Amino acid sequence: MRRILRHAYILTMDKQFSAYEDGALVIEDDILVYVGSDKDIPFHFRVAADEEVDLSDTLVMPSFINCHTHLGMVGFRTLGDDVADRLKRFLIPLENEFMNEELAVASSRLAIAEMQLAGVGAAVDMYFFEEAIAKTAVEMGFRLWAGETLMASPHCDAQDVAGGLAISRNLISTFGNHPLITPIIAPHAPYSTSFEDLKAAQALAREHGLLWTMHLSEMDFEMRSFRDTYDATPIRHLSNLDLLDDSLLAVHCIHTSDEDIQLLVQNGTSVVHCPGANFKAAKGLARIPEMMEQGIAVGLGTDGPSSGNTLDLFTQMKLYAILHKNEKKDRTAIPARSVVPLCTSEAAKLLHAYDRIGSLEEGKKADILVLGLDGPNMVPAYDPYSLIVYSSGVQNVQHLFTNGNWVVRDHRLTGVDLKQLKNDFLHVAQPFFEAACKRL
Amino acid sequence: MRRILRHAYILTMDKQFSAYEDGALVIEDDILVYVGSDKDIPFHFRVAADEEVDLSDTLVMPSFINCHTHLGMVGFRTLGDDVADRLKRFLIPLENEFMNEELAVASSRLAIAEMQLAGVGAAVDMYFFEEAIAKTAVEMGFRLWAGETLMASPHCDAQDVAGGLAISRNLISTFGNHPLITPIIAPHAPYSTSFEDLKAAQALAREHGLLWTMHLSEMDFEMRSFRDTYDATPIRHLSNLDLLDDSLLAVHCIHTSDEDIQLLVQNGTSVVHCPGANFKAAKGLARIPEMMEQGIAVGLGTDGPSSGNTLDLFTQMKLYAILHKNEKKDRTAIPARSVVPLCTSEAAKLLHAYDRIGSLEEGKKADILVLGLDGPNMVPAYDPYSLIVYSSGVQNVQHLFTNGNWVVRDHRLTGVDLKQLKNDFLHVAQPFFEAACKRL
Repeated sequence: MRRILRHAYILTMDKQFSAYEDGALVIEDDILVYVGSDKDIPFHFRVAADEEVDLSDTLVMPSFINCHTHLGMVGFRTLGDDVADRLKRFLIPLENEFMNEELAVASSRLAIAEMQLAGVGAAVDMYFFEEAIAKTAVEMGFRLWAGETLMASPHCDAQDVAGGLAISRNLISTFGNHPLITPIIAPHAPYSTSFEDLKAAQALAREHGLLWTMHLSEMDFEMRSFRDTYDATPIRHLSNLDLLDDSLLAVHCIHTSDEDIQLLVQNGTSVVHCPGANFKAAKGLARIPEMMEQGIAVGLGTDGPSSGNTLDLFTQMKLYAILHKNEKKDRTAIPARSVVPLCTSEAAKLLHAYDRIGSLEEGKKADILVLGLDGPNMVPAYDPYSLIVYSSGVQNVQHLFTNGNWVVRDHRLTGVDLKQLKNDFLHVAQPFFEAACKRL
Repeated sequence: MRRILRHAYILTMDKQFSAYEDGALVIEDDILVYVGSDKDIPFHFRVAADEEVDLSDTLVMPSFINCHTHLGMVGFRTLGDDVADRLKRFLIPLENEFMNEELAVASSRLAIAEMQLAGVGAAVDMYFFEEAIAKTAVEMGFRLWAGETLMASPHCDAQDVAGGLAISRNLISTFGNHPLITPIIAPHAPYSTSFEDLKAAQALAREHGLLWTMHLSEMDFEMRSFRDTYDATPIRHLSNLDLLDDSLLAVHCIHTSDEDIQLLVQNGTSVVHCPGANFKAAKGLARIPEMMEQGIAVGLGTDGPSSGNTLDLFTQMKLYAILHKNEKKDRTAIPARSVVPLCTSEAAKLLHAYDRIGSLEEGKKADILVLGLDGPNMVPAYDPYSLIVYSSGVQNVQHLFTNGNWVVRDHRLTGVDLKQLKNDFLHVAQPFFEAACKRL
């Protein structure tokens, strides 16, 4: 299958930030075989194309990568958004009692559909029943870094971390070499797993050359507990235990000392920034610009639908830029061109996948976002990065290709009946909803 | 013309926050003649309806009111977003040299189209060539509080404040009693007009019983200049000069002392909060929760397309909630139910128009927003206000009625060819674009 996309304004997000005003892409199955000016498309590609698409009046870029979410949690969305004890009052008891594979899958379908319609082609997930969720991602043509949550206490699909590690091993054997799925190891947090468990998680990641991820330095009680028990920050303590390394994606890192930042640098640990969820929960602003100045790799995440409500990265990009501008009292800080990489090229580097995705370059996978420039909010565009970060929104996502496949076409999912998806979810989630409403 | 909208989930935004799960609205020309349960629609309305619309799977609410914008400034969007001196480098010189009535009108058309597609049915505008802009609003079926900007220095449509006041008087005589247009008086700021000029602006507003609006306590240089010259804050000094009153909408008010807040309370002055534009410009966070606790009326605004880039209020509502939650370190602060009024009922009160708009009640104007619940981001909805503030976006705006007329239908403008609008703007703006690009 050879597809030619023509006459688009292309932002490649390659190392030189190359752009083509009248650009073209040629896709051979799942691979980009030409990225350049429209007028220079090699003749041998043009003579035998299965499909030629005119993308005039669009901006084409790599599809977004969401570096942290919990796909199974759609059922919790808008449940106690403004409530202090929502974790204990809603999340933990409902998850323990009512979460099951069917609900996790139905939720993941809706979450993936939402992301695809918002231009997100890949995500890093941390949830339960992760093997079933990974299968769902494959069905929907979505690229997923799939991590089974590891927790010490009994939970919906395992009794302890050993149980979660067993699920992780299954995930690895099922999806070890899959074009769309990359297994990762996902201990929940340093306060909900023992250090021995974290060691086991790290060891499993190392054994298979995988990434691992966990929530870190997020919660006030977490900071207090480490200070009181170990006289250290969580980052300091994990570093002492050799539990920080360059395969770890540390999520949130809201509360960091200067020393913490140095430790993350020294260990090569990456950070995922979820500004929307962090602010909605009044948790504070991670010191991301300082981290990046020190060389820490950073990606953006939406967090789960219960925390950030929406799974779109337009909101996170805008928040990342304006929150840090205001914090620094400097409107020139965090320019738009430095923001887009955190959802594309830098995010791919974080995932050790920049050789495959994160930019539009020949030889890479065809993970492509097409933004329509026909909306009234998309005029003018002196700076295409400004346009993406400050002016664009979900409504401007016109097409999405993942792994060479057309996933969203003219603002609609190609392979999925959204109404059916939603009705299935509402049906499966009924007992959950009833229990949730009783707790309101 | 009698139109019946049936089977919607209705949030009326009336004083009791009344809602109807299976609700209906009957519109007689421009007026709501029935708001209630679907099963209770009076028989005499049902027998003679010109149009009956099934709104199952939608949420119906009053359309949004944008309390501060500059419709003529679309041409500046994405121009120097991250540049320190953009006011002096781009805005002032380009506006002085290249702004004209044709461009202001072409820009306003695009801006109004953007707002309507985002569920905004009314706005407060401060710009130049305001009579032509008001005519544009009428043509597009948009409700506008139209204010000609008053500035002391020579500018694109007048030499001084006297010239701007003459334009304001024309505006009043043309639109004094128009169903969609309400003239207001709009001095730019206390640093760009003399106090005598502000007195004249206030007097003209009083003479005709109009509102007036100006930027206030927004800029660092403004605060310094008032301190150095008058040993007072701008609010203190204006209050000393009897220049604060209960017809004034003070925009931004980012920098306020406790005394400033008391002075706003005592004078009955309202405040317009533009959190997106303020943060993007790194100007700080206005003390809105404290102001509201003291009884100051507050509305939300997008600011102009050059400042906030988008003109949608979903973004502003979300920002208002999460910025202040984080500032107060309290996730229970600014609950969603307290946010929606700032774009609907409270905004209408600010505009002294709650007897006509801002809620769905019998006898009021039919200014109605219909949000589709079919999007994957709109499930579930334990709390409809949470859904609006945290989960919804422009892509969910399905229909919009203004003054009883169907303005947006199934995500499209009914009376406007958007492509034509955009092409007209690009054509008219060509000399402006060329000059702008030379300054980049």
